[in-house]
Amino acid sequence: MEKPFVVGIDIGGQTSKIGIVDTRGNVTCQSVIRTDTHTDVSLFINDLHDAISKLVNSSCGFENIRGIGVGAPNGNYYTGTIENAVNVVWGGNKIIPFAELLSAKLSLPVALTNDANAAAVGEMTYGVAKGMKNFIMITLGTGVGSGIVINGEVVYGHDGFAGELGHTTAVRYNGRLCNCGRTGCLETYTSATGLARTARELIESTEIPSQLRNITSPITSKDVYEAAVEGDQLALQIFEFTGKKLGESFADFVAFSAPEAIILFGGLARAGDFIMNPVEESMNVNLLPLWRGKIKLLFSQLKESDAAILGASALAWSLK
Amino acid sequence: MEKPFVVGIDIGGQTSKIGIVDTRGNVTCQSVIRTDTHTDVSLFINDLHDAISKLVNSSCGFENIRGIGVGAPNGNYYTGTIENAVNVVWGGNKIIPFAELLSAKLSLPVALTNDANAAAVGEMTYGVAKGMKNFIMITLGTGVGSGIVINGEVVYGHDGFAGELGHTTAVRYNGRLCNCGRTGCLETYTSATGLARTARELIESTEIPSQLRNITSPITSKDVYEAAVEGDQLALQIFEFTGKKLGESFADFVAFSAPEAIILFGGLARAGDFIMNPVEESMNVNLLPLWRGKIKLLFSQLKESDAAILGASALAWSLK
Repeated sequence: MEKPFVVGIDIGGQTSKIGIVDTRGNVTCQSVIRTDTHTDVSLFINDLHDAISKLVNSSCGFENIRGIGVGAPNGNYYTGTIENAVNVVWGGNKIIPFAELLSAKLSLPVALTNDANAAAVGEMTYGVAKGMKNFIMITLGTGVGSGIVINGEVVYGHDGFAGELGHTTAVRYNGRLCNCGRTGCLETYTSATGLARTARELIESTEIPSQLRNITSPITSKDVYEAAVEGDQLALQIFEFTGKKLGESFADFVAFSAPEAIILFGGLARAGDFIMNPVEESMNVNLLPLWRGKIKLLFSQLKESDAAILGASALAWSLK
Repeated sequence: MEKPFVVGIDIGGQTSKIGIVDTRGNVTCQSVIRTDTHTDVSLFINDLHDAISKLVNSSCGFENIRGIGVGAPNGNYYTGTIENAVNVVWGGNKIIPFAELLSAKLSLPVALTNDANAAAVGEMTYGVAKGMKNFIMITLGTGVGSGIVINGEVVYGHDGFAGELGHTTAVRYNGRLCNCGRTGCLETYTSATGLARTARELIESTEIPSQLRNITSPITSKDVYEAAVEGDQLALQIFEFTGKKLGESFADFVAFSAPEAIILFGGLARAGDFIMNPVEESMNVNLLPLWRGKIKLLFSQLKESDAAILGASALAWSLK
C-alpha cells in the first residue's frame, strides 16, 4: 500500500507552519516554529526536524509518511534550493540546498517550490481546481504571487522561476515604485499594500467623504474592507480601481495560456464581490472577443488557516 | 520502418503552400494553389487533394507518407477545426472540421494548428530551438503571432487558442486601434503594419529630416528598413521605438513562463540588428533582476521560403 500521509511545510519570514496531511486533504495535526530565531539555516533545520519528529511520532509514525513538501519564498522546484530569499533571516544573498539538507536530516524525500506554486498544486489536489488542467492561481497578500498550471503541470520555466505575474506591468510609465526596483508592477496596485496605497492616494486627491479619513494610523486593506461593508463610497471606489487593474492584467494572462479559470486566493480575496465584480467586468471588457464571458473567476476553496500547509503538502504526493 | 516523409500545408488568405518534407527538414518538392478561388471549403479541399496527389505520386509515393500537418489561421489543434477565419474566403463565421475533411479525402492522419504555433513546432523540430524545452516564438508579419513552448509542448490552453501575445496590451490607455476591436495591442505597434504606422506618426509629429518624407505611396516597413540601412535618422528612430515596445512586452512574457529564449521570425525580423538591439536593451531594462542578461534573443534559422511548410509539416511527425 502507498504510504497514506505527507508532511507540508510553509516557510514564512517570521514563522513556519508544519502539518501532517492525509490523502483527502485533512490536516491531521500541525505546529508552528519560528523562522527568524537563527541566522544559520542548519539550526533552523534542526528545529524543523524536532518539530516534525514530534508531530509524526505522536500520530501516524514515520513508516506512513510518503514525503515532505515545502513552500518557501524563492523556492526553486528544479534544484530544491532557496535562492536569495531576502525576507528570511537565514536566506539573503545565498543559494541554500534546502530540500537536500532537510531530506538528509529526516531520511525522507523532499519537494520544494515557492508559496504561490504550492498554493496552485494544493488547489489542484484538494480544492476548486480539482480536475482542471489549465488554470492560474493568483495570491493577493502582502505581494501578488502566481502559480500557473498548463496541461496539469505547474509552469516552472527553464530555470524554475516562472510565474511572477505580480511583476508584470500594470502601468507602463510613471507607475508606482515596486520593491523589486522596477515601476508599475501589478503587485504595487493589487496587493493588500497596493490597495492601502490606493486608499491613501484617493484620500489625498479627492474630496469624497469617507470614514477612512478619520483613521489616524496607517490605513490597511482591512480598514478599506470594513468601510466598504458599510457602503462607504470611497472604499467602494478603491476596490473598483483595484479590481479594474487586476482585470486588465488577467485579460493579458488569458491571451498567454487560455486558462479555464483564474483562481483568487489570500487576504484580499476575502473581500468577495467588492473585488470580484470589478475584476470580472474589467477582464471581460479587455479580453479578445473569443474569450469574453468564458473564463471562470473563482475563489480558492481551501480553508485559509490550512491552505499554506495543504499547498506545500500536495507537492509531496508526486514524490517517489 | 517508420514512414520517412510528411506533408506540410500552409494556408494563407490568397494562396496555400504544400510541400513534402523529409526527417531532416528538407522540403523535397512543393507547389502552391489558390486559397481564394472557392467560397466552399469542400471545393478547396478537392484542389488540395489534387495538388497533394500530384506531388506525392511523382515523388515518394503515398506508402511513405506518415501524415499531414496544416498551419491555418484560427486553427484549433484540439478539434482540428478552422474557426471564424475571416481572412480566408471560405472561412468566415463558421467552424470548419478541416482536419477531418482532409483526412477523409486523403486517407491520412491530419494535425492542424495556427501558423504561429506551427512555426514554433517547426523551429523546435528543425531550427534554432532544437533541444529547447521552453521558448517563445514571435512572428512579426502583417500581424504579430506567437507560439509558446513549455516543457517541450506547444501551449494550446483549455480551448486550443492560447498564445495570442500579439493581442496583449502594449499601451493601456489611448493605444492604437487594433483589427480585433480593442486598443493598444502589441500588434498595432510591432507588426510590419504597426511599424509603418509609427513611420507615418513620426513623419507628422517631428521635423527630423528623412528620405521617408519623399515617398509618395504609403510607407511600408521595407521602405523604413532601406532607409535605416542608409543611416536615415528617422528610420533608425522608428526601429528604436518598435524594438522598445517589443522588449517591454517580452519582459512580461518572461515573467510568465521564464523561457530559455525568445525567437523572432517573419518579415520584420529580417531587419536584424535594427530591431534586435533596441529589443534586447528594452527587455533587459524591464526584466526582473534575476533574468537580466540571461534570456536569449534569437532569430529563426529556417529558410524563410520554406518555413511555413516546415512548421506545418513538423506537426505531422507526432501523428500515429
